[in-house]
Parts: sequence; C-alpha cells; structure tokens
Amino acid sequence: MEPKVSELTTIGKRVKRVDAIQKVKGESKFIADYEFKGMLYGALVLSKYARARVKNINTDKAKELKGVKAVLTYEDIPGENQLGEVVEDMPCLVPIGEEVRYFGDVVAIVAAESQQIANVAAQAVEVEYEELPPILSIEESLKNDVKVHESGNILTSKKIRKGNIENGFSNSDVIIEDDFFADYQEHAYLETQGILAIPESNGMTIYGSMQCPYYVQNAVPRILGIPMNSVRIVQSDTGGAFGGKEDVPSYVAAQCALLAYHTKKPVLLSYSREVDVQFTSKRHPIKSHYKVGFKKDGKLMAIEVNAHMDIGAYATLSPIVMYRSLVHAAGAYDVPNVKVDIDGVYTNKVPCGAFRGFGSPQVLFAIESIMDEAAKRLEIDPMDLRLENALKVGSRTSTDHLLTESVGAIETIMHAIKISDYENLKKSVSEFNSRNRFKKRGIGVSHIIYGVALGAAGQLLDAAGALVQVQRDGSVNVHVGNTEMGQGMKTVLAMIAAETLGQKLEKISVENTDTSYVQDSGPTVASRATLFSGNAVKEACETIKAKIITVFSKIKNVDEETVSIKDGIIFSPDEKMTFEEIVRICYDSNVDLISNGWFKSPKLHWDPKTGLGEAYLTYAYATQVVVVEVDLLTGKTSVVNAFTSHDVGKALNPVGLTGQVEGGFVQGMGYAVYEEIKMRDGKILTDNFSTYMIPTINDIPQSIKMDFVEDEFSQGPFGAKGIGEPSLMPTPAAIANGISNAIGKRVKRIPATQEYVLNLIEEE
Amino acid sequence: MEPKVSELTTIGKRVKRVDAIQKVKGESKFIADYEFKGMLYGALVLSKYARARVKNINTDKAKELKGVKAVLTYEDIPGENQLGEVVEDMPCLVPIGEEVRYFGDVVAIVAAESQQIANVAAQAVEVEYEELPPILSIEESLKNDVKVHESGNILTSKKIRKGNIENGFSNSDVIIEDDFFADYQEHAYLETQGILAIPESNGMTIYGSMQCPYYVQNAVPRILGIPMNSVRIVQSDTGGAFGGKEDVPSYVAAQCALLAYHTKKPVLLSYSREVDVQFTSKRHPIKSHYKVGFKKDGKLMAIEVNAHMDIGAYATLSPIVMYRSLVHAAGAYDVPNVKVDIDGVYTNKVPCGAFRGFGSPQVLFAIESIMDEAAKRLEIDPMDLRLENALKVGSRTSTDHLLTESVGAIETIMHAIKISDYENLKKSVSEFNSRNRFKKRGIGVSHIIYGVALGAAGQLLDAAGALVQVQRDGSVNVHVGNTEMGQGMKTVLAMIAAETLGQKLEKISVENTDTSYVQDSGPTVASRATLFSGNAVKEACETIKAKIITVFSKIKNVDEETVSIKDGIIFSPDEKMTFEEIVRICYDSNVDLISNGWFKSPKLHWDPKTGLGEAYLTYAYATQVVVVEVDLLTGKTSVVNAFTSHDVGKALNPVGLTGQVEGGFVQGMGYAVYEEIKMRDGKILTDNFSTYMIPTINDIPQSIKMDFVEDEFSQGPFGAKGIGEPSLMPTPAAIANGISNAIGKRVKRIPATQEYVLNLIEEE
Repeated sequence: MEPKVSELTTIGKRVKRVDAIQKVKGESKFIADYEFKGMLYGALVLSKYARARVKNINTDKAKELKGVKAVLTYEDIPGENQLGEVVEDMPCLVPIGEEVRYFGDVVAIVAAESQQIANVAAQAVEVEYEELPPILSIEESLKNDVKVHESGNILTSKKIRKGNIENGFSNSDVIIEDDFFADYQEHAYLETQGILAIPESNGMTIYGSMQCPYYVQNAVPRILGIPMNSVRIVQSDTGGAFGGKEDVPSYVAAQCALLAYHTKKPVLLSYSREVDVQFTSKRHPIKSHYKVGFKKDGKLMAIEVNAHMDIGAYATLSPIVMYRSLVHAAGAYDVPNVKVDIDGVYTNKVPCGAFRGFGSPQVLFAIESIMDEAAKRLEIDPMDLRLENALKVGSRTSTDHLLTESVGAIETIMHAIKISDYENLKKSVSEFNSRNRFKKRGIGVSHIIYGVALGAAGQLLDAAGALVQVQRDGSVNVHVGNTEMGQGMKTVLAMIAAETLGQKLEKISVENTDTSYVQDSGPTVASRATLFSGNAVKEACETIKAKIITVFSKIKNVDEETVSIKDGIIFSPDEKMTFEEIVRICYDSNVDLISNGWFKSPKLHWDPKTGLGEAYLTYAYATQVVVVEVDLLTGKTSVVNAFTSHDVGKALNPVGLTGQVEGGFVQGMGYAVYEEIKMRDGKILTDNFSTYMIPTINDIPQSIKMDFVEDEFSQGPFGAKGIGEPSLMPTPAAIANGISNAIGKRVKRIPATQEYVLNLIEEE
Repeated sequence: MEPKVSELTTIGKRVKRVDAIQKVKGESKFIADYEFKGMLYGALVLSKYARARVKNINTDKAKELKGVKAVLTYEDIPGENQLGEVVEDMPCLVPIGEEVRYFGDVVAIVAAESQQIANVAAQAVEVEYEELPPILSIEESLKNDVKVHESGNILTSKKIRKGNIENGFSNSDVIIEDDFFADYQEHAYLETQGILAIPESNGMTIYGSMQCPYYVQNAVPRILGIPMNSVRIVQSDTGGAFGGKEDVPSYVAAQCALLAYHTKKPVLLSYSREVDVQFTSKRHPIKSHYKVGFKKDGKLMAIEVNAHMDIGAYATLSPIVMYRSLVHAAGAYDVPNVKVDIDGVYTNKVPCGAFRGFGSPQVLFAIESIMDEAAKRLEIDPMDLRLENALKVGSRTSTDHLLTESVGAIETIMHAIKISDYENLKKSVSEFNSRNRFKKRGIGVSHIIYGVALGAAGQLLDAAGALVQVQRDGSVNVHVGNTEMGQGMKTVLAMIAAETLGQKLEKISVENTDTSYVQDSGPTVASRATLFSGNAVKEACETIKAKIITVFSKIKNVDEETVSIKDGIIFSPDEKMTFEEIVRICYDSNVDLISNGWFKSPKLHWDPKTGLGEAYLTYAYATQVVVVEVDLLTGKTSVVNAFTSHDVGKALNPVGLTGQVEGGFVQGMGYAVYEEIKMRDGKILTDNFSTYMIPTINDIPQSIKMDFVEDEFSQGPFGAKGIGEPSLMPTPAAIANGISNAIGKRVKRIPATQEYVLNLIEEE
C-alpha cells in the first residue's frame, strides 16, 4: 500500500500544462486586457531618419488636441535620460542637439484618453531634423568615416586563442575556407511589447509583457529618480518573447512610467506591430569567415573564425550576445587549435540584441556548413565525421573547458541515427531524387553544443530565488524571479515543487513574477529557468518539507529518517496521514511553512584576454537530421521530415520538452528559409506579418520525431539542464545543409530564401 | 568619527510617521478609491425583523432592472454557506426556511453598474417572512423560552477559581458588593467596511479595509469552494478599525467575492454608514455583579464576579472576548482568592465582537469602581489603595500567573502621582468645588493591567512573520502579516528594521499586508503587532545583516565581530563604506538579501477548568488620573484634565505612543460619557453620526499629560510590549470614578450619559 521512497511521482510524467485551461479558455490576462477607469493610452514619436540631428521639438499642436494628457520630451525626465542594459549608449528620449541613430529612436511620447487620440497627437508633434548620412552596413561602419557613436564604431572585440592555430593548419591535410552570412530575424512574438504603469501612493507598479522584470526594476527608478523599493514590477501573462522581451521592456516601461508619473494616471503603452518591428531589437546579422583544417581521417585540427556582428544603433545586450557567439563559433567539437575574433559594429539600423540562441545559431550555421562540406570532400558520412570529433567526458571545449560530466553529445548522434533510420533514409532520398527531375531532396545533418545559463560573462546575474508558501489547506504558492512566457516554466517548476514537497501537482500554483517576492533572479534567458529557478524552488521546498517531517516524527514518535512524503501522503513504516492533515497540524503549532530558496552559479574561471576557461556552467548537446525538398524551378524549399535528439540532462516534463523542440524547430526553420527583414535606407519595410513571412501550419514538416538523452547534470534539479534555446540551435544549419545537398551547391547565407536558392541553382 | 556600537540610532527617537505625507496629501488609496473599467457595485438585502423565518425570496423584479448584473441568494453559493470566525453559527446568506436572527442578517446580495442601481435593486428583492418573537435582553435570553440558536441561548461559560473565595470573604473586614453595566460601543471608524473583489484567471484577489487579511483568506475560499492558494488578500489603506475590522471584513469579503465570482467582474462592496452600523459587531454589553473583600488596611482579600455578556445573534469572536473579560475581571491586583463566572448569552440583536480592549474595559470599569468605593469607605487615598495591592515581580495575577519580569505597575502609579501633581490637584479640585455651587469637579483614578497578544486562548494563532528584501540600491521593502490601520505600525516596524539593519529610516518601506508574502500572522489585535511583527522583522533583518557583515569582513579582511552597521554606514575599526556600497557588492556576488522572519508565542500553560495559568505572554500596566466637571443642573460631564502613565516595556516610537494614548483616551472618554446605541425592537436607531454621538475636538480635555514607564520585556523587540489597547483601558473607569466623586454618587453604568448622570443627581 505504501508508495516506495525511491519512486519519482511527478517528475518525468506526462502532465497537462498548468496554465493550459486559462489559455485555452481565453482567461489569461495579457497586458492589453487590463482596464482601469480613467486610464490613458500612450504613443511614441519615432525618428523620421536613420541618422539626423534633432534641431527642435514643438509639442504645442499635440498638446492642444482634446483628450491629450501629456506630451513629453527629454526635458520631462525627472531622473537620468539613460537606457541601455549593458552599455550606457541609449537615451530614453533623444534631446535637442543630439542625433537620432535609427528609425526607431524616440523623440517624444504622448498619453491621451484613447489610443486613437494618442496616435494623432504623436503625429502632431513637430520635430525639426538636420539629416545626416547614415551608416547602413558593416563595411561602411568599419571605414569609420562617420561615427555612429562618439566612442567609435566598434563597440567591442572578443577573441579565443587556444593551442597554436598555425601548427594546426600546417598539420592539416584538408583546409576548408569560406564566408557565411546570417541575416536578421524578428522575434515575431504574438503579443507586441506592452506595459501598464500605475502610479501608487508611494511609488509605481509596472505590469508588463516581459522576460526580465528585474531589468525593468533597475530602469524605471533610474528614469524617475526614485528608490528601487518604491517600484514593483509584475509580469502579466506574456504572449511570447524569444529574447525580444529581455531588455526591450525596460525601455517601454521607462517611456510608460514617465507618462504615468506626469499624468498620475494608469497608462497603457501597447506597441502596434509596426512600431514594435521598427523599434525593438532583432537577431544580429553576422558575417563570418571560417578556415578549418582536418586530417584525412576527419580529425579536426584547427578552426579559425573572423566574424563581424551588426549591432545596429545601440549596444543593448550585444557584448553578452557576442560572448555567446565567440564561445559557440567553433561548434561542438574537440579541436586542439582555435582562434576566433569577433567584432561588434555599430550601424544606423535597428539595434540587435537578445534572440533565442543569443548569437549562436549564426555561427553554428557556419561551422556546421563547413563540417558538411568537409564530409563531402573527405568522403566521410557527415554523421561519422561528427562522431569522430564529438565531445565526451574528458574532452576540452573550444575554450579549453574540461568536461567532467553530463556530456551526452555522442549519444545524441547515435540516437539521431537510430530514430531517423539514417541508412534507409539516405536510400529513400536517393530513390526520390532518381525518380524526380525538378524536385530534389537532401539530407541535412547538424550537431551542436549549447552553453546553459549566463556563463562566465554573466556571473554577476547568474542566481535565482524562490519563495514557496504552503497554505493552511495544503495548497501551495510558488513565487520565482524567472518568467513564464509560453515556454512552460510554470509547469516544470510546479512539478519540481510537487516532487520535492511530496504534494500533488494540482495543489501547486506558480505565480506570475513580481519583483517584490524574490530577489533579482537574473533574466529569463539562456535556457536557465529550469536549472536556476528549479534549484531555488527545490531548496525552498526541501526546507519546508524538513519542517513538516519534524512535526510528523514528533507527533507520531518515529525517526525522521523513516518518514517520506509522496503524492499528498506523509508516511513512515507504520503511520500515515494526508499532506493536508499534517499541514493543518503545523499551522496549529505555529510552524512556518514559508521559505526562500536561492541558487547561484558556482564561480566560473574565465580569462577574457585569451577567451579560455569555464565558459558555461554546463552544456546541452543535440543532433538533428532533416530531409528537405527543393523545387529546382522555383527555388522553394520545404522541410519534409525532421529527427532530433537532445541531451537535456533529465527529462523533467516530457510534454514541455516536446513543445519546446517543436517550437524551436519551426522558429529555426523560419530563420533558415522564410524570414527576411527588408530595409530601405535603414527603415524596416517588412513591419507586419503581411510582409515578414513566418512559417505557418502549412510549412511544418510531416513529423518532427524527437528523442531525449538523459545524461544527468549533478547540479541540475533532478539532473536537468535546459531546452529553451538548444531546441532551435541545430535547425538552421541542418536545413541549410539539406538544401546544399539537394541542389549540390553550398548555401552560405540564411535565410536561404526562395530567391536566394533559385539564384544559387541558376548560378554558374 | 565612528558611531558607537551600543547606541540606538532610530529606536526611541521622535520621527515623522512614515505614512504621514501620503495621508496628509490625500494620496492614500482607500478601498473606495479603486476604480476599474466595468466594475460593479454591491448592495445587501438586510432582514426586516429581529427574528423571523424566511418563507420566500423573489428576485425577479430586482433582476429585471437595467444595469443589474447579479441578484444572489443562498442557492448561489458554490462552497459552504458558513461564516463565523470561532463558532460556526452564522450563514453568509440566510436560506429559505431558516430564521433571520437580527436586523443585520443578509438574505440576498446585489451587484449593479452603479451604487444607485444596486441600492434600488436591493430594495426590489421581495422577501416573505414569518415574524417570530425576538429575544432582546440578557434576562429574556436566560429564561430560555425562545432559543436564538438551537444549541441554546448560553454560548459558553468561563470561570476562574483561585484560592478559597469563602475564606477570602470570611477573612475580610469590609465587603463591597454592587452591580455594574457597561453598554454597547460602536467602533465609529471613519471609513466604513469595504471590499473590492477582482476575479483573476486563476482565482481571486480581494482588496479591502481590514485588520486581519488571513481571516479573509480562510473565509473566501470556503464560500467559493476553491483552494486557498488561488485567493490573495491585499489590505488597502485602512481608515480605522478598532477591532471592528477583525472578523467582519471576512463576512463582507464573502458577500463581495460571491458577486465577483458570478459576474466575473471587479465588484466593490462599500457599506453605507447605516448598513455598517446595523450589520457589524459592537462592543459587548456586560452586566456584572461584584463582591469584593478588603482588610481594614486596604489589602484585597477576595474578588467574586458574576457577569453576563450580551453577544447578540451570532458568536463572532465572543468566546475569545469572554476569555479576556475573564482574565481582566479581577483587575490589576495581587488577590489571593478569586472567583469569576462569565456567561455569553445570545439575543436577537446586533452581534458583539472585537473592540479595542476586547471585553476588558467593561470589567475594569467595574473593579475600578469598587476600588474607588473601597478607598472612600476605608478612608484610604485611592492611589494608596492601589499601591498597596499592585502587582510586582514575584506577584501572581488573578489567574495565578507568576510574574517574573517587566512589571511596571507600581512605577505607573508613582509616575501618575508625579505628573498629575496629585496632592495639589486634590487641593485645587476641592477649592473649585467650594467656589462653585452648580458645577462640581471630581478626581477619578484608575489602575489597570492588560494582557498583551492573544494569550493562552489564542495560542493557535499567536505567531507572526515578515519578509524583508534589501534592494540593489540599498532601499528596503518590509512585508508583514499584521496591518496598519492608523495605529502607526508601519512607522514602528520601519524603525525596528532601520535599527536592526543599520540602514537609514527613510530607506525603509513597510508595505500594506498581502497574504501572499507572509504566512498567517494571526490577527492585528490585542496590541500584538509591535511585539510579534516587530520580532519577526527583527529576525529577518538580523539574518540579512549577518550576510552583509560576512561579505564586508571577507573583502576587508577583518573579523566579523568587529563589524557594525549603523545609520547607513558599515564599519570596522579601520574600514568603512556606505550601506549602499556594500549592498551593491553583495548583489554583484549573488548574495541574497531577502529573508523571512518568524516569531511565535512560547507555549503558555493554562487550565480552562480552573481558569488558572499563564493567561498572557506578558502584561502592560497603566495608571490614570482625570479631573471631571459635572454640571449639576444638566448632568453634563466634561473632562478637564487627564494624566496617564503607561508601562510599555520600551518606548520605541515616542510620537506613535503619544498618538495612541491620545486616541485611546478620547475613545475611552466617548465610551464613558457620550456614545449610546439606541434600539427599537432590536433595530439600531442611532445608525449615523447625527444620532450616535462620538467626542469631537470640543470635548477633549485641555491636556492629556502622559508618561511612559520602560520596564523592558526580555522577549519584546528592544524590550517593547504594546500600547494599542492599554491606551483606552483606564479611561472609562477613571472618568466614571471622577463623576462619582464630583456628584457624590456612584456611577454604575457606562456610558454615563448626561441623562443618566442627571437622574443619578436627582435620585434620592
């Protein structure tokens, strides 16, 4: 009758997403669903040029409009006119005499009784500009004739120096050298940026669609010139983010808070899609030159990378994104000699910043294209080439990080071979190709590594907290500092809490993040929420569980060691009662069942001068096989089949993993073949989904078959690592390789749009 | 230059109330200030009889009215139709077939688009009653001919049996025996009861004017049939409570939550003054018979009390109130033989419940009247009589509780004598009386004991928590489970936090209570907030401070023992930095500066069969002297002067103490001479301030001179006990004695209204 102590009751089970019903029934409350009597609506006055000097701002006409409550410029900022998460290069409102640096720069902000009036008022603000020549490409920027910022056009440079690159090449039998380009990607979250600022008697409450409430908590007090304890940030239900709501909501919140501060009314600032696309950061375009040396047998000897990232008009999070590009540039392999140089370059275009993968899919696309090309030239199967060079326990990464545990890389390759029935798949593709003249199929393979959490460059922020409270009726509230934005964090954290406390899953409620419950837990990025918040929740639950067990063992007169709690029952060999009963007893004896948890990254040793050291706490690995089909007459690519194996450490929530992998695959596929930002003179033309093409249900492959390797990570909760970003990482490379193999020509640019592929086919 | 370690920098200083500016500027947000788009307004359908059976409820006409969104009866309750904080004797909505038991019973509730429509709709609900004979007095109830509840008319009986009462009387030289009556008192808080219920995607948020959010958190899930973790209770700024918002807001919230649950809209239920007076609980009328034996020299030998409390139609908190009446019935003295019997009796009148003092001012009025009478008969000065019998360390209270520390009783008597210049005061009063024929003055003295916190009867709830978070900029948020309702809790807790952390007071923000931050901290009653929440805040701050000191000592390489933090500076003999600097360093090393605190009452030993044991954790003491003047022609009483000395353990916030003592005095004076609930057939006629007379600024004495004895309590934060209720306790008795001495006749009833006093004067 008694449950067994060793059994996991919740972790690893297929459970319903905890917020599924709310979402399906439309009960989730997104920021635009908040309604207050007398609330106001905000609008922005954006720059009319990619680069220009602001000569004058005349708000008179806008202010005269009926229903307009505030028209604010830089002069109305009570605190510092300073934004920028890492580098302080971005004003909240561009002052007279200063330059606008891209079409999204904000010169004035407006609040009015309706969104319509606000929009009209924004149009009525008269800004006088002196137009200046803009920098619209990496090449122009590097000439340094025009400076985007006074400090110069190269924001920063990062490097790795491992081994001896010259020796590496001189000992190589085959050297492959090529240029690659990965362009912008727009996050295309369903819900645009939105913030609601509510003035309170002792400060302000900010509700918003966001990934990183603590960034907002830093930004708003600074703009308003008030202490941090007077500003509380509450995440509203968030309709997608993908990195696009990492730092950007801080800027939106700064604008909105200013409007609320001056009008003393609740103000909703909800971006239109067009403003959102124009203003907010994108995935960085990266130009890279790769030179890679192999032995005849396929052994990697040397990788040299020279890359430039277009960071746009402001740095946002670029230095950290560059760090991840740097660490991932040499891919998932054991290579003795590595030299990487990456520059971040300012241009007068949309700033680039955080996006699922954070600078790594661009470089993983490049190195995996090289690997594919090498397999062809060396006449080794692409899978075998990767197997030969794959990382394992005892290997050292490209930053010379000695791997001591949880390296499931080879297993992911073996599993991918197995689930794709790789040998038969190759046969069926050649059969297809022999039968079809104008449609060709290709198999694309990729193998990736992904550093989990913030890593050495982000150690200052790599911690997370939790506050867990068991209520008198045995139901449980869990507060964390990381956010749910659709990825399923609430479900996995509820599972961790249920498993650790021994309470049933349905009794656990994980709340939307509110900065007032939990200390700064860093951003919800870098696939770190399960690992960091998960550990924090686990710690808090363990503290509470220990107290409950003490009470039980005292009243039942049994040894604490013999007591367990599982699935809503506390029991020792001869005694048991329900979780609810023991909790009631704890309450009646004034035992507090509320506890904090806190998990911080162990110290990572890293030398920025050499780019060597423990780049990340741990790494996830994945291998992917895709079959693509290219119409040779039109250049149109479709993905027919996909097979993917991920080392996640431990599959805590199999349903959640499936969702992440499917979503990551489709977003990666969009990046690989469909999504293209088009600009004219630095202004984004593709500013809505009528022109910016994201994949639809018609574009997804027949099946995405997946598999999870569980090479447990000792510091992860129940052994887990992360999946949010690894899910996307292998896809652009695999698809590009699939196209290359289908058409027999190397894809060197993503998105490999229909136009690009057709040109490639037709090219001599 | 360095501050001294031993010095207190904040505690004991005269500081500005932390919420003063908000209140003075009208920025505080009371419940009726909340506005949501589409919100609804609630109204109640109250009983039309003191006792009747509900035959039918027809809501058709009410529902047809335009703008009406819900008309609910008992059938619409998804959970249990059960209210009542201690005894489950109270329905939320009276069902058909059941009895209404007083004029405030609720039969239906209404929500509509405006308050006006809601009121009209409430009128339009047709309820058919069968009128039944009501019980309108204690005497009728005791006959037991009609049962108010099926269980019988005596709710419960409580007793003390200390020593041998017969021996006590047989060894007495003088025995004084008399009857006393203390009538109702209305709380007369400025802000009426009000709750705003907001349906959320996963439950409900309840905002409200309240003392005890955790009571509400228990009540609402029960009525709605949902788990406790889906209901969050947030206290809004609260405009007075005085016990009237202890349990009552749970009932208001249950009504309001039902309306929100069914309409899925935010609903505000804000009582009109008339509904508030009719529905909500009052101070208990108590009839008591006292028999007290003295030796000739004044030594108290025996006290026998027989009392009946009119608890009204429902028990609310009466059992706990009765406990306090019981413990305080024999007053503040060392008496060997005590016998007390108290019955709580149901009637078909307004329920009585919590009110500042909780059943003790009624009995303190009686015992102190006896003491005054005894002084006269024994020809001992009233002060000397009290001095002779006063408690000290080593004494045992009337419940045989051995007092081991913090007994400042005698000091309060000595200080009262001193600050009143007692001997000269007596002279000046006799001079006044000899000069005036129709105006007579009298000196009234009283000496009281007051049990701090919930005591043995409330041990289950006698704990409190805190959650303290130091923000990155060094500003601090403090969350507690007790509430600010005007008494000054936020200020004293901010002082405790500032002192303990070593941060400046202006950097501390104490937030309105929200059940989601802190575990059930019991009710904010019984003068326990400073002691309980204060200790919890102190513990949390000490944990954080220790972490900060560890970081400082590590980076400065100094011994932790040599490090202190005072007034925003952390220092060791040779090193120092600001609080802000060290906090920034802690954040950058991922040290969590958030912590829970928890304080629970040590176990109190109590035998309910004998009424003997450790009734309360500790006791406060006070002595008061008043000079009253009575107009013999009209019976009008005015209080000319007041002098009061309180043993508070430690004066943490002198300004707050002054406010409490002034407020307590004036409320006690209202109870003593002005405030009278008038009823007709059980319906309250004095249902607004035009008919229910509370003191105004014209009625307060020329001066209330006060003094604080600091006999530190080892378990109190910095030695503090409590002041909220002790401030009122001595006043009714002192004023009654003053009137008795002015007119030469014993006042045996409070309020001693003008009419009563005139009758007494004119009586043979």
